[in-house]
Amino acid sequence: MSETPLIVQHDAYGLPGVVRLTLNRPGAFNALSEAMLDALQHSLDDVAASDARVVVIAGAGRVFCAGHDLKEMRAQPSLDYYQRLFARCSRMMLTIQRMPQPVIARVHGIATAAGCQLVAMCDLAVAASDARFAVSGVNYGLFCATPGVPLSRNVSRKAAFEMLVTGEFIDAQTARERGLVNRVAEPEQLDDATRALAASICEKPHAAIAAGKGLFYRQLEAGIETAYQLAGETMACNMMDDDALEGTQAFIEKRTPRWRKT
Amino acid sequence: MSETPLIVQHDAYGLPGVVRLTLNRPGAFNALSEAMLDALQHSLDDVAASDARVVVIAGAGRVFCAGHDLKEMRAQPSLDYYQRLFARCSRMMLTIQRMPQPVIARVHGIATAAGCQLVAMCDLAVAASDARFAVSGVNYGLFCATPGVPLSRNVSRKAAFEMLVTGEFIDAQTARERGLVNRVAEPEQLDDATRALAASICEKPHAAIAAGKGLFYRQLEAGIETAYQLAGETMACNMMDDDALEGTQAFIEKRTPRWRKT
Amino acid sequence: MSETPLIVQHDAYGLPGVVRLTLNRPGAFNALSEAMLDALQHSLDDVAASDARVVVIAGAGRVFCAGHDLKEMRAQPSLDYYQRLFARCSRMMLTIQRMPQPVIARVHGIATAAGCQLVAMCDLAVAASDARFAVSGVNYGLFCATPGVPLSRNVSRKAAFEMLVTGEFIDAQTARERGLVNRVAEPEQLDDATRALAASICEKPHAAIAAGKGLFYRQLEAGIETAYQLAGETMACNMMDDDALEGTQAFIEKRTPRWRKT
Repeated sequence: MSETPLIVQHDAYGLPGVVRLTLNRPGAFNALSEAMLDALQHSLDDVAASDARVVVIAGAGRVFCAGHDLKEMRAQPSLDYYQRLFARCSRMMLTIQRMPQPVIARVHGIATAAGCQLVAMCDLAVAASDARFAVSGVNYGLFCATPGVPLSRNVSRKAAFEMLVTGEFIDAQTARERGLVNRVAEPEQLDDATRALAASICEKPHAAIAAGKGLFYRQLEAGIETAYQLAGETMACNMMDDDALEGTQAFIEKRTPRWRKT
Repeated sequence: MSETPLIVQHDAYGLPGVVRLTLNRPGAFNALSEAMLDALQHSLDDVAASDARVVVIAGAGRVFCAGHDLKEMRAQPSLDYYQRLFARCSRMMLTIQRMPQPVIARVHGIATAAGCQLVAMCDLAVAASDARFAVSGVNYGLFCATPGVPLSRNVSRKAAFEMLVTGEFIDAQTARERGLVNRVAEPEQLDDATRALAASICEKPHAAIAAGKGLFYRQLEAGIETAYQLAGETMACNMMDDDALEGTQAFIEKRTPRWRKT
Repeated sequence: MSETPLIVQHDAYGLPGVVRLTLNRPGAFNALSEAMLDALQHSLDDVAASDARVVVIAGAGRVFCAGHDLKEMRAQPSLDYYQRLFARCSRMMLTIQRMPQPVIARVHGIATAAGCQLVAMCDLAVAASDARFAVSGVNYGLFCATPGVPLSRNVSRKAAFEMLVTGEFIDAQTARERGLVNRVAEPEQLDDATRALAASICEKPHAAIAAGKGLFYRQLEAGIETAYQLAGETMACNMMDDDALEGTQAFIEKRTPRWRKT
C-alpha cells in the first residue's frame, strides 16, 4: 500500500458512489511527482467515465500536498521537460473541472504551491482549522504561475497577488473568508465534515448534478447573455429528466421524491 | 388588488421617482408564474422608458419569492415549453440589468431558486436580518442553472457551487459577507433601510446614474483596456452634461449643487 | 521640493530597489492635475525600464489623493479635452499594471474618485486604519466611470455598484474585507507595514516577480484553458532561470538560496 502513490477507495465514508483518492507519498509531503500526476490522471479519468457521484481528494500523513516534486524537477533542467511537465499537470487539474462529479479537497496540514492549486481547482474544499495555504514557489525563485490560475479565480485579485509575490501562508479561517475553501472543521471532525458535504450531494439526482457542474463552468467564462442561453437550455433539458419530473411532482404533493437513479 | 400578480406603486416611500413593484401572490410564496413574469416584464419595460429614478422589488406576505411556479411548470412537461419559459424569465432578468434605473431587491423571509436569482440580478439588495437565501432546485432534481448565472457573478465560485449542489440556505449576514446583498437591517427597519438607499440615489443627477449603470455592466464583460476606453468615453460625455458642470462648479465654490433635472 | 508635483525617492525605507513616489500637492489634496499625471507617467515609465524592484505610491500631507483636479477640469469644458484627459489618466493607470515591478499603494486619510482608482489599480495596497475610500464623483454629478473599472475588478459587483451610485465612504477595515486593500495598520505603523510588504518582495528573485506579474494579469483575462497554457509557458521559462535552479537546489539541500541578481 505504501508503494502506490495514490490510494483509491470506493464507497468511502460508507457512502456508495463516493471515491476517495488519497495522495500517498507521506515521506515526500505527497509531492506531485510524475508518477503521482499519472496516477491522478488515470484515476480521475476512470471516475469520470463511471457512475460515481463524488470524489474526495485527501493526503496521507501530516500534510495535504506540498506541490511539485522539486527533487525530480531539478534533476532534469530542460525547457522541454518543464513544458511537458506543466502541461501534464495542467491537464490533470483541468480534468477535475471537466469531469461530471463534484470534487472535494479534504485539506489538513499544509497545501502549498501545486498543492494549493489542487485545492483551488476542486469544486469544493473542506479544511482542518489548523491547515495552512501558500503559493510559496517564489521563495525558491519559481513564481507559482499555474497555481495562480485557479487561485485568482477563487479569491480577490489583490489577495491572490499578495500570496503569489510574498509566498506567505494564510490560515484556514482566512482561506474560508476569501473563498479558497468552503468549510472549516476541527481536525478531529474533518472527515465528518467532508462526509456531510459528500452525503448532501449524493442525495441529489445524478443527472442534475452532472449537467449542472458542466454548465456552471461553461457559463462562468461567457458573457451574461450567452450564459443565460446556455443555462436556459441546460435547465429545460434537466426539467425533462424523469427525476426532475418526479422531484417537482413530489414537491407539489409535499412528499419525499423517489429517485429513479442516484 | 389581490387579483393582480404585481402591485405597482409610484413615488413609493414618499420619494418622487421611486417605483415599488410588489410580487403579490402571497398564497403561492410569490412564485414567478407566467402571469407574474409577464407583469414584471411589462412593468420593468414601462419604468425603463419613464423618468423614474429607482425601482424597488419586494414581496407581499411572508416571503420575498420562492422561485418558479412548479405546479404550473409540472403541468406542461414539454422541452419546448420549458425552453420558452426559461428564455422568458431570462429576458425579464436581463431587463433589470439593462434598464437605466438602479433596481433594489427588498428581501424578507426567503428568496429561493429564481427568487434568489432575482436578488442576484438586482443592482443592489437590502435584506431583513432573518431573511434566508438558497438555490434549492437541486433538492427536487432541478439544478438551478439560470439562478447560477447571476449568483456566480455575485459571490465567489466555490460558495456559489456549494449552494447549487447542496441546495442549503445561507442567512442574511452570510449573504452580505459574500456579496449577494449590500445591507442587512432588522425586519422592522427593512423599509427604512431600503428607503435610505433609494433616497441616496435619487439625490444624484439622473443622467449620471443612467449612463453610469449602463457603462458599469458593459465594462465588466470587457478586457481592462477596452473597459477603460468605454469608461473614458462615458465619463467625458457625462462631464459635458449641465448637471456635471454645475456639480463641479458647486464643488469648487463649496456650495450645494442646484440640479437641472433629477 | 514643494514645487514638484511628485517626489521621487530611491532606495526608500532603506531598501535598495524600492522607489517611493509621493504625490506632492498637499494643499490640493494631491489632486491628479495634468502636471501630476505627466509626472506620474514619466516616473512610472522610468521605473519600468530600470532595475528597481518595488514601487510605493504615497501622498504628502493629510490625505492620499482626492482624485482629479476639478478646478482645472471645470475650466476647460470641452468634450475633446475631457476625452484626452481621461485617456491620459487611463494610460497612466494601465502603466501601473503593465510595468514589471509590483506597485503598492500606501493609503492614509482619504482616497476618493481617481484617488480610489489609483488604490484599486495598484497590485497591492496597505491602508492606515483610519483611511477612508469613496468613488464620490456622483455627488457632484460625475459618475466615477473610470474608477469603476479597477474597483469592480477588486470588490464584488454589488459592493462596487453601491459605492458608485451612493458616493458613500467605506472604512479601511471594510476595504480590506472586500478586497480593495491587502493590509491595515495603525496610522503610526503604516510605513512599517508598507516597508515589510516591500521587503518581502525584494527578497525574491527579480525575474520570477517580473514574469509572474505580467502573467498574472494576462491569464486573468483569458479563459481557464488559455490561462493554463500561458502560465505553463511562463513557469517553464522561469524554471530555466539561474535563480530558480539555484533556489530549488537550495530547497533540496535545505539551505538559504544565493540569488545571482536581486
